[in-house]
Amino acid sequence: MKDISEISSSVIARLPRYYRFLCELQKNGTERISSKELSAKMGLTASQIRQDFNCFGGFGQQGYGYKTEQLIKELSAVMGLDELKSAILMGAGNMGRAVASQMSFETMGFSLKAIFDSDPLFKGMSLKGLPIRSADELEAWCAENKTDMAILCIPQEATPAVADKLVMLGVNSFWNFSHYDIHSKHPFVNVANVHLSDSLMTLSYTIKNNGKG
Amino acid sequence: MKDISEISSSVIARLPRYYRFLCELQKNGTERISSKELSAKMGLTASQIRQDFNCFGGFGQQGYGYKTEQLIKELSAVMGLDELKSAILMGAGNMGRAVASQMSFETMGFSLKAIFDSDPLFKGMSLKGLPIRSADELEAWCAENKTDMAILCIPQEATPAVADKLVMLGVNSFWNFSHYDIHSKHPFVNVANVHLSDSLMTLSYTIKNNGKG
Repeated sequence: MKDISEISSSVIARLPRYYRFLCELQKNGTERISSKELSAKMGLTASQIRQDFNCFGGFGQQGYGYKTEQLIKELSAVMGLDELKSAILMGAGNMGRAVASQMSFETMGFSLKAIFDSDPLFKGMSLKGLPIRSADELEAWCAENKTDMAILCIPQEATPAVADKLVMLGVNSFWNFSHYDIHSKHPFVNVANVHLSDSLMTLSYTIKNNGKG
Repeated sequence: MKDISEISSSVIARLPRYYRFLCELQKNGTERISSKELSAKMGLTASQIRQDFNCFGGFGQQGYGYKTEQLIKELSAVMGLDELKSAILMGAGNMGRAVASQMSFETMGFSLKAIFDSDPLFKGMSLKGLPIRSADELEAWCAENKTDMAILCIPQEATPAVADKLVMLGVNSFWNFSHYDIHSKHPFVNVANVHLSDSLMTLSYTIKNNGKG
């Protein structure tokens, strides 16, 4: 088992994929799976999978394969999905609404506690059972409610000021849908950036280069 | 310069990031950049960047650094961003609307030509200047308009049937926002999957393990 700080970002990036595949397998009634079968499904080598899992102690493969349920539990613990962190959503526009309505936050380690938008249009409206609050209420809300993470679904130009304010209010983790690089000003916060354009450009590359286009 | 089929997926995955950084640099007036400076900004080693670029012929670094504008052009050509492919959007719900309104398709190799939704609620409405068409019109539309790519912003349970239909109508590239694995049934189409949950789980891992939480 490696020291957690030595685990490479590419191993970490594969953990959610393993988790997704295993949840799918469990849903379909698969109780055990060998690293060979898992590798065929995921397009990785069996040895790569064993190496990845060994970073976290190996997840106890015995005899024929891994127990699906146990592996899901172990991966969940490694990623902290079993420890709910409180989250707020900044922005109730299309992306904010899509994220709030489609994500199962509680199965992914977060609990959505409040939603803010500066547009008075949303006054009195609610989303996923939560009232959409005015951005003016943010300071008072954070003073009274420990906030672990903020989801930023606001326009790019508004992001720097909102990120600064949230950091000042003690929020130190961000799920960021804008292209603004929060780390450049706040190097010590946790950030996961969603760059939808990267995925679209990769598709363009694939169409151009794999001869299937 | 490598044969295109030998280029690893991790190199390909970095191309959009290079492109984003360089566009940002150009916007800020930076005309030239060394691989050393680029590496500091991107958190990669200079040697890694040179190796990546060498896969595509090196992009002609001369003396001090790369010319930003030229490098952007070269990366754009490599990813096919300069060859517009026609795209349609399936689904005008929150995610579909977020994608349609926030993405600059034309700068990323695609031209959005039509939008479809099966919900009669959208009848007579438009999005980004395009009418939201009934899903019943899909077949006739594809018969008359060459469609290179479909963006799937529809519920998971509707995705298999819609993907089957589109493949039958000759669409062979997909930007897929559901967790349904199109490749398992249609191994020869081009797919880029957007798994927002992967990014959220990675954030949970980071909060748990990096001691900043």
